[in-house]
Amino acid sequence: MKKIINDPNKVVMDMLKGIELASPDRLKVVPDTTVIARKDAPVANKVALISGGGSGHEPAHAGYVGPGMLDAAVAGEVFTSPTPDQILEAIKAVHGGSGVFLIIKNYTGDVMNFEMAAELAEAEGIEVEKVVVNDDVAVENSSFTTGRRGIAGTIFVHKIAGTKAESGGSLAEVKAVAEKVNMNVRSMGMALSPCTVPAAGKPSFVLNENEMEIGIGIHGEPGIERKNITTADEIATELTKRILDDIDYTGSEVAVMVNGLGATPEMELYIVNAKVHSILADKGIKVYKTFVGEYMTSLEMAGCSISILKLDDELKDLLNAKSQASAFRV
Amino acid sequence: MKKIINDPNKVVMDMLKGIELASPDRLKVVPDTTVIARKDAPVANKVALISGGGSGHEPAHAGYVGPGMLDAAVAGEVFTSPTPDQILEAIKAVHGGSGVFLIIKNYTGDVMNFEMAAELAEAEGIEVEKVVVNDDVAVENSSFTTGRRGIAGTIFVHKIAGTKAESGGSLAEVKAVAEKVNMNVRSMGMALSPCTVPAAGKPSFVLNENEMEIGIGIHGEPGIERKNITTADEIATELTKRILDDIDYTGSEVAVMVNGLGATPEMELYIVNAKVHSILADKGIKVYKTFVGEYMTSLEMAGCSISILKLDDELKDLLNAKSQASAFRV
Repeated sequence: MKKIINDPNKVVMDMLKGIELASPDRLKVVPDTTVIARKDAPVANKVALISGGGSGHEPAHAGYVGPGMLDAAVAGEVFTSPTPDQILEAIKAVHGGSGVFLIIKNYTGDVMNFEMAAELAEAEGIEVEKVVVNDDVAVENSSFTTGRRGIAGTIFVHKIAGTKAESGGSLAEVKAVAEKVNMNVRSMGMALSPCTVPAAGKPSFVLNENEMEIGIGIHGEPGIERKNITTADEIATELTKRILDDIDYTGSEVAVMVNGLGATPEMELYIVNAKVHSILADKGIKVYKTFVGEYMTSLEMAGCSISILKLDDELKDLLNAKSQASAFRV
Repeated sequence: MKKIINDPNKVVMDMLKGIELASPDRLKVVPDTTVIARKDAPVANKVALISGGGSGHEPAHAGYVGPGMLDAAVAGEVFTSPTPDQILEAIKAVHGGSGVFLIIKNYTGDVMNFEMAAELAEAEGIEVEKVVVNDDVAVENSSFTTGRRGIAGTIFVHKIAGTKAESGGSLAEVKAVAEKVNMNVRSMGMALSPCTVPAAGKPSFVLNENEMEIGIGIHGEPGIERKNITTADEIATELTKRILDDIDYTGSEVAVMVNGLGATPEMELYIVNAKVHSILADKGIKVYKTFVGEYMTSLEMAGCSISILKLDDELKDLLNAKSQASAFRV
């Protein structure tokens, strides 16, 4: 295992310290927790947004904490859901009297623990609502999930629901727009190489020298198919086709995200982006906004995912507003 | 070779198309060139800033094109200087009547070709000045360089000189502040694994399973020492020590950049950042601003570099101003 770490069992705490030190004017670690919150949290009379999950997907989710996006991100151990107690700490740290909204990626552990935390918070008189994001069209169920998995499309939920909350939306309004994003975003990924959880010390699976996996999950969960590596154009075509087959984007404007899984050079993401744009143009689908970079990674996995969000005027306005989160720039 | 590409000999053109399509409102490829320019270039009565070099270091340099930073980035083939003709095209595309300023990383090919382009432009009546950035303290000369190499510290030159130009600075003033940044910034890097130039098809060097290289260059040029991988804290300590030994930062405020070389998870960069902050705090050096992420990469090399810039009030103000480049956020 080649990693720049200290104790493999303390990578999350070491990372959180580094994140806080990088942005002391904007972010804070809530004392004695694994929660990164807005420095000014709790913000009075604003719906507070929380996301999180296992670590190893950086910049998800701490990179999306800031005005106009999340109020807090809860970090579990690498690829492991945070506990209900950790999530409850986040809820208590950021609720400002207008309710708390949880953005959960659809993995069994995350859903269970975030829901348990919500119940505990409600018992303390805090109103909590949630969305469970399930944008990954690759598989209906997987080793970690009942139903579709939540992957990079989650970042659009952070941004759009976050802006809704920042501009004074009620808990019900934030929930409604978050569900609208989830209904209209689809994603799919692929990988050329696996990644290694520090505490495990070896890769979670193996791909041969000429092999790639289509439809892989962000923890290395199996996808749809292993096959020989093809060209960027063929990869972009296959991922985009499965997304477009899933909902009708005809005549729509869309936002596109080409997301790197960790080890993929930005050069390759842009090459994929060029093909995605060409496919969408051929189908008369207009790209309103494009995001290329690392938004939701899997440690040092090589590969990418494509997400496409169908937009209407409301979603365009909310997507377009400036936010102060370090990892998302409109 | 595992890469998401089409033709290995056309990766740069494919990438440039993807970059333009991602930001059609902000960027353009200058027709029939490898130049990415501000959409609104040339900007009248503003000193125009140009950087560039071999491709494979993305987001350097196209990610730094935008108001407040560069007017254009010239892309050579992977790890190969752009030709004088390509650089001349960039100069002609962006000069707005107040002169052109070239930010060159110190590699023999880059310096020679940018200087030749400057002479050609001057023959056409365009005033050109330059800075040659040589922030890498690792080696005095290398396989590609006479003198020290230019690495991630170059991004601070882009930002600070770019803001100076955007706020109406003259060519002489832009040059003066660029040289001031170069005088006050030092960097050093290390790698855990090599990278593969697409057209070459195999890694340019080999590191054993337990080996790292200290002081490596951004093209895989040899550094100071190969040795067994140590902890993040020891790596951060060694790189920081060599930087601090080189100029006197005592009592200063500084900007810190912890830069990923391509395949290194953000988690690891933040772990390094925590240690760098702790070392600087122990020495009474105050960190004014921190940048953690991928700023100047080496394709899919795993590793990182640390840059430290000594600040004064002028540099702080120029660093702090907002810019519109996609890859740099203050």
